Amino acid sequence: MRTTTGWQSLEPGSTNLTRVGIERRDLRPDDVAVRVDHCGVCHSDLRRLQGLLGETHLVPGHEATGVVTAVGPAVTRLAVGDRVAIGTIVDSCGECAMCRVGQENYCYERPTSTYGGTDRVDGSTTLGAYSREYVLREAFAFPLPDGLDPAAAAPLMCAGVSVWEPLRAAGVGPGSRVAVAGLGGLGHLAVKFAAALGAEVTVLTRSPAKERDALALGATDVLVTTDDAQVAAARGCFDLIADTIPDDHDLTPLLGMLGLDGTLSVLGNPVQAGPPVMTLTAGRKKLSSSGTGGRRHTVEMLGFCAERGITADVEVLPSSEVGTALKRLAAGDVRYRFVLDLSDLDAPAA
Amino acid sequence: MRTTTGWQSLEPGSTNLTRVGIERRDLRPDDVAVRVDHCGVCHSDLRRLQGLLGETHLVPGHEATGVVTAVGPAVTRLAVGDRVAIGTIVDSCGECAMCRVGQENYCYERPTSTYGGTDRVDGSTTLGAYSREYVLREAFAFPLPDGLDPAAAAPLMCAGVSVWEPLRAAGVGPGSRVAVAGLGGLGHLAVKFAAALGAEVTVLTRSPAKERDALALGATDVLVTTDDAQVAAARGCFDLIADTIPDDHDLTPLLGMLGLDGTLSVLGNPVQAGPPVMTLTAGRKKLSSSGTGGRRHTVEMLGFCAERGITADVEVLPSSEVGTALKRLAAGDVRYRFVLDLSDLDAPAA
Repeated sequence: MRTTTGWQSLEPGSTNLTRVGIERRDLRPDDVAVRVDHCGVCHSDLRRLQGLLGETHLVPGHEATGVVTAVGPAVTRLAVGDRVAIGTIVDSCGECAMCRVGQENYCYERPTSTYGGTDRVDGSTTLGAYSREYVLREAFAFPLPDGLDPAAAAPLMCAGVSVWEPLRAAGVGPGSRVAVAGLGGLGHLAVKFAAALGAEVTVLTRSPAKERDALALGATDVLVTTDDAQVAAARGCFDLIADTIPDDHDLTPLLGMLGLDGTLSVLGNPVQAGPPVMTLTAGRKKLSSSGTGGRRHTVEMLGFCAERGITADVEVLPSSEVGTALKRLAAGDVRYRFVLDLSDLDAPAA
Repeated sequence: MRTTTGWQSLEPGSTNLTRVGIERRDLRPDDVAVRVDHCGVCHSDLRRLQGLLGETHLVPGHEATGVVTAVGPAVTRLAVGDRVAIGTIVDSCGECAMCRVGQENYCYERPTSTYGGTDRVDGSTTLGAYSREYVLREAFAFPLPDGLDPAAAAPLMCAGVSVWEPLRAAGVGPGSRVAVAGLGGLGHLAVKFAAALGAEVTVLTRSPAKERDALALGATDVLVTTDDAQVAAARGCFDLIADTIPDDHDLTPLLGMLGLDGTLSVLGNPVQAGPPVMTLTAGRKKLSSSGTGGRRHTVEMLGFCAERGITADVEVLPSSEVGTALKRLAAGDVRYRFVLDLSDLDAPAA
């Protein structure tokens, strides 16, 4: 066993994390060990700490970047010293229809989550990247392209690919009319991606104060959803709405803004109830959802980001301030993603 | 005013229709008068007679074929003697985004329903095609192509276009994996259309007895949905499921049979509740619905049917037996559409 240090929740439902020593497995032939330098703080980390899935003793973290420090004997694609990124899954069956097309995130045998998952070899519970080291199969450690800042790139691995996949699946490009509802971790990257893909992008928000930020991110318009007149005027205006709102909300007004054959992609809060089927009928609308990304889309997205110089807008904190990050995230006080700098774990505990 | 004869429900919620004299408007400049020879009996006729929309005094009927008997002075496209078909709508605003792309069925100002609708000029309630004559704008009377039997073609105008639109919107063609759930009026046409478009078609049904019929209609496979093993084996197998089941049912097993980016199109019973959003997440699935057809799709469908020799499988009854048709339809005893022959209305009432 290897040992490292990380941040763990020791009480059910608690978002207070404690610095602990944790074990990592000895490298299997196709494993790499990664020194985790940065890890994004995802809204799902908060929810799972609060007990969404009934888990305990979580070490969260599934938006990581770092450097390879050791490789197993069968590793061919990565070498010690390589910069890599780690996302929401670290293994999958590799054989089902979804894995065969690079959508390991939808693996029929359940992908192995980066934390709170079950290792496919030894059955242990995976511990996340709020820690100084992570060990995983090389297939799920993605080379981090040159030029991408490792702190700002970390959130691409969940927030980023979670919006990249549906944008690409919908064929967003020049001429597409895309709306992004909610301007948080996912939303701000959806705006950047959709704009870079050539779409006209409208941000849907309850707060007029977000207009300047939205335009700076690449949006061409902002629509204030509490203004009924603006909502009515937007009837039929969008081909795709990327809904990144993290809480339960009424989908009907969003559906009304879709044009013929338009798609409402619910990304921020897929656990919410669906609308009546009838709300889709007029205009032949589609309701969809998707979850993070497979290897194919992840590689594609990282390449696109490197080419276009896209990363997340982040606020970097030493990992010892993870409690502050989680509290501020719960209060919606973040623009647009907290990223933990794990290097403080090299020093002895305070 | 012109007078004709038709079948009307005189008591709220009653499916007993009475032969009555009814008035038709004098022709406006762009109107045509149509001698209705045949009219399909749609499941929605039954539901609306039963009170689904709280209407009374309905003269149902929105799947009609007949012959033009008079034209207004501004009519340019049709002439007396032309064979025509009438569908579910007889007018629309003509100016909104939906009308402009030939999707008058989704008109933002509400299309005028063939029966139970409100005439855009005089505000009267429209009376349907269970009658010997219908008067409507020429734009909504579609030339019936040569070679199509007028009785068997009548159901194309609602059942047909209701499945044609979603098949075309989904881009169904060679290589598409299409499933049709429910093998009634809509379903049997969905099988014929999808097969003619080049798709591999599987019929999903609760009754193994339908296998022979399904294959005869053009299906390549039949899946019995009460057999859990068959349902499990079909995981991820379809790109599109055209769900024509007319009653409330659980959509989850159907969603499980969709492959990556697959679409479940709920056509038979759009008033039912939607599934939780989360059932769409794994596999990036889409839930959709649509309602009948606009002019563009109707013209396209009629041309396709003429070219391929496709019509509905019908049982033709004299219109005086409309009560029998409705009773048998309610009992599911129909293969696959009743069509009324309205010529018996030329004789004096019995």
